[in-house]
Amino acid sequence: MTVKAPTLTGSPRLRRTPFSRRVEAAGVQGYTVYNHMLLPSVFRSLEEDYAHLKSAVQVWDVACERQVEIAGSDARRLVQMTTPRDLSKMADDQCYYIPMVDTCGAMLNDPVLNKLAADRFWVSLADGDMLYYYMGIAGGQGLDVQVFEPDVSPLAIQGPRADELVRRVFGQAIVETRFFRYKTVTFGGKEMVIARSGWSLQGGFEIYVDGTEHGEALWDTLFEAGEDLDVRAGCPNAIERIEGGLMSYGSDVTRAHTPFAAGLDKYCDLDTATECLGHAALLGKRDPDKRVRPLEIEGRGQQSVAQYWPLASGASLIGHVSSAAYSPDFQTNVAIGTVNADHSEPGTELQVHTPEGVRAACVMSEFWIRHASRR
Amino acid sequence: MTVKAPTLTGSPRLRRTPFSRRVEAAGVQGYTVYNHMLLPSVFRSLEEDYAHLKSAVQVWDVACERQVEIAGSDARRLVQMTTPRDLSKMADDQCYYIPMVDTCGAMLNDPVLNKLAADRFWVSLADGDMLYYYMGIAGGQGLDVQVFEPDVSPLAIQGPRADELVRRVFGQAIVETRFFRYKTVTFGGKEMVIARSGWSLQGGFEIYVDGTEHGEALWDTLFEAGEDLDVRAGCPNAIERIEGGLMSYGSDVTRAHTPFAAGLDKYCDLDTATECLGHAALLGKRDPDKRVRPLEIEGRGQQSVAQYWPLASGASLIGHVSSAAYSPDFQTNVAIGTVNADHSEPGTELQVHTPEGVRAACVMSEFWIRHASRR
Repeated sequence: MTVKAPTLTGSPRLRRTPFSRRVEAAGVQGYTVYNHMLLPSVFRSLEEDYAHLKSAVQVWDVACERQVEIAGSDARRLVQMTTPRDLSKMADDQCYYIPMVDTCGAMLNDPVLNKLAADRFWVSLADGDMLYYYMGIAGGQGLDVQVFEPDVSPLAIQGPRADELVRRVFGQAIVETRFFRYKTVTFGGKEMVIARSGWSLQGGFEIYVDGTEHGEALWDTLFEAGEDLDVRAGCPNAIERIEGGLMSYGSDVTRAHTPFAAGLDKYCDLDTATECLGHAALLGKRDPDKRVRPLEIEGRGQQSVAQYWPLASGASLIGHVSSAAYSPDFQTNVAIGTVNADHSEPGTELQVHTPEGVRAACVMSEFWIRHASRR
Repeated sequence: MTVKAPTLTGSPRLRRTPFSRRVEAAGVQGYTVYNHMLLPSVFRSLEEDYAHLKSAVQVWDVACERQVEIAGSDARRLVQMTTPRDLSKMADDQCYYIPMVDTCGAMLNDPVLNKLAADRFWVSLADGDMLYYYMGIAGGQGLDVQVFEPDVSPLAIQGPRADELVRRVFGQAIVETRFFRYKTVTFGGKEMVIARSGWSLQGGFEIYVDGTEHGEALWDTLFEAGEDLDVRAGCPNAIERIEGGLMSYGSDVTRAHTPFAAGLDKYCDLDTATECLGHAALLGKRDPDKRVRPLEIEGRGQQSVAQYWPLASGASLIGHVSSAAYSPDFQTNVAIGTVNADHSEPGTELQVHTPEGVRAACVMSEFWIRHASRR
């Protein structure tokens, strides 16, 4: 049964962003909800947005990447309690991709951690109220920290022309920022963090817009400066992010995964990150019984994945597909799934039960676009 | 500018429920997202759904009222740490509406607490990942508790004919359940909690459907038994719940409110609930500087509130409207807002800035439908 796309009913509980009016004026067609906030999901069409992202430059309202600010003498310790990645060597201008885990070593989130000072961090969240987790630990242990959500709304500039757009608005020194490092710029009289990061493989920046009142002015400045670059409003693109293996927490990775199951071994410093509350549990889980893998699905896909598609090997259910899309550039259905470890070897042939029937699927050795290293 | 209602893009991250296929077959037109899950917002129209809810009986997919199960020798203590309502006299078959607060006394959520045993509770959540807050405190303090989200999905039966429908399916003994008490029924070989509760003022029950596999069978049983009662699929209705003063956490009440500002004084047992982590803070906040109030707005409303409408008294901004709707039964615009304490007296005349212009508003002495006592 094909169901007409339902509408999303507005409410203050589904927060608008400093950029929402501009996003509407740009013709947003669909939303998702992320951290109780509106996140655009499509402007022209998934395929058209995709082709444009890979050839020009887009400005993304990713205000839903809410920040948790953790400040105080116990700030580093509190963050370290929630992640197996060793924070002791983190530079003062550095951004770390960190798995967050509970006391059992299960994945809670996969945010980007920005170190603002030795005793002050921003955690830029995937979907989930980690604010409450930090508050719970801090309140339960009586730590010397302040934990709160600042009025900071990331705006991403992504695509091959992102450097040129940022050069025009903020200058060459900013363009020279290294990957997963940040600098500061001044806009509207306010200092703001700008990092070389973002949820695409096309390169670019994220500006941590500090103060709702600056959102529209910054948006307009970027669009005026980038008119001849064909700058457009965009959003994280389902096709491109699957090609690049950018996992979506809540879909591709959940509390049913350890960082090892999610393929995040290199962010688990179990020799040194002993303050992590999940440390002891993770020591026994280095050899996961299931793994997140790239998958290719035969045929030409139509639907996106609204609920998991079961993956079978003959009569056995051995996993599920969590994200899938037809890739115009790679001329195949690219997908992310979780498979039992004994079916995770590249080349393993499987069957996926899609809403449109059973199709052949194959475990791939790597994603279609390579990451720049986040390490 | 009138914006076309955007569509909601599906994703496994926005979880479907055990009842989603039935909800779709019943013609759901709109959704909201609540606790990372789909919550229907309208079937025929807001007004038609409203009239039907008040005259017949509806079955609501409120699976999004996710449960946090807290079990173990420290279970009561952990729950008490998060609420100023004294749990010591709670009966074994009782449901408590509880304000949840942080260490500063700010509102985190307003769930219904169900006591399953002396050392086992379900917290039936409003929108917010309180699971993480409980996990954080438990992990931080090393409490002897298990904290997790069970596979339990509430299904509400609401409306004046709800008792008759429940009588037919579960018998007279269940209908005799008192308000905010529960009994258990057996369905599909599984014991399930059924409480006299629900997010309307029309009376009825909530069944805590235990196990996804029972959802559709129970739905079908209710619809077969209630055909001549004109049972329909429904959902919390924005008009009716404003008439009844049922506050929506995240819209009407947020972390900017204490329980006192939210009018929940009677759930604050500051003399006895000293284990609450916000106890000391709340002692100094009994006299709030703002209050949630019912408001009447002149004219005939068209739009619902997608973002706060500013409330002014002459040139001064003194609050905002968080929810509003035109009430066919009361022939006026009913609304919920937060106003400064010195503008909170019934009869206070204000001006509200709606997207369609400035209108007169008046603070009311009480909501339009009276609550049964939850105490």
